[in-house]
Amino acid sequence: MKAEILQSFIEKIWNEGDVDAAGDFIADKYTVFHDPGDPWEGQELDLAGFKNRVTVSRASAPDQTFDIKEIYENENSVCLTWLWSGTHQGEIANFPPSGKTLHMSGSTVYYFLNNKITGHWQVADRFSIYQQLQEIASQQI
Amino acid sequence: MKAEILQSFIEKIWNEGDVDAAGDFIADKYTVFHDPGDPWEGQELDLAGFKNRVTVSRASAPDQTFDIKEIYENENSVCLTWLWSGTHQGEIANFPPSGKTLHMSGSTVYYFLNNKITGHWQVADRFSIYQQLQEIASQQI
Repeated sequence: MKAEILQSFIEKIWNEGDVDAAGDFIADKYTVFHDPGDPWEGQELDLAGFKNRVTVSRASAPDQTFDIKEIYENENSVCLTWLWSGTHQGEIANFPPSGKTLHMSGSTVYYFLNNKITGHWQVADRFSIYQQLQEIASQQI
Repeated sequence: MKAEILQSFIEKIWNEGDVDAAGDFIADKYTVFHDPGDPWEGQELDLAGFKNRVTVSRASAPDQTFDIKEIYENENSVCLTWLWSGTHQGEIANFPPSGKTLHMSGSTVYYFLNNKITGHWQVADRFSIYQQLQEIASQQI
């Protein structure tokens, strides 16, 4: 049940960018427990704050796709491993849009209460993104 | 059962550095399926190759500790989330030993066959390590 909710959440909210559907998935408070490098790390977000995080996060690669690799389910949480890709169409960490396809992998634990998502703990391979952006920049000089 | 094996594996091999015990845990072939930034990514290791990976990896922070945060178990695999810390006592990516404590988080899926570990899929927050090393270097100039 939680796994199916999450698959739908990832597809609709993060892949399609349908932020208006966020309220179907998340609890009144959504906590970014751990997400090093994410500007919202440590914050408790309400629905508007969560929608803003999705909108801002997706702006640098609006065609982004999280491809779920594996799903692990515990009683009140689900851990996903994933591969991400997207076209670099907005500024990332002072690197201007390049139009290149970027790739990243990561793992996210989502916490649930009454079938609503209350927050996440995430690690993403941001160093690979940094290396890809540096490589692109070096080719453009 | 697999979770207990992994807890013992992490403690003995990675935390204590008892490489001679590696054969109790890993299969004849150990595959590094995915581990961006790890020099052994994509390789199939035999026991000697695996021991070498542990020895070389631990040299930069011999007192390192993987603190397991959560454990998720599927039929043939286990996913761990973890917090890592260690004292920077060997060169890392051209940064000389600083004696400072470094911190990192990550998530690792370990695959099993007949209660032996056949390989892993891992994401570690190497960008945080890079930022810590840069910060240390900037203070030493």
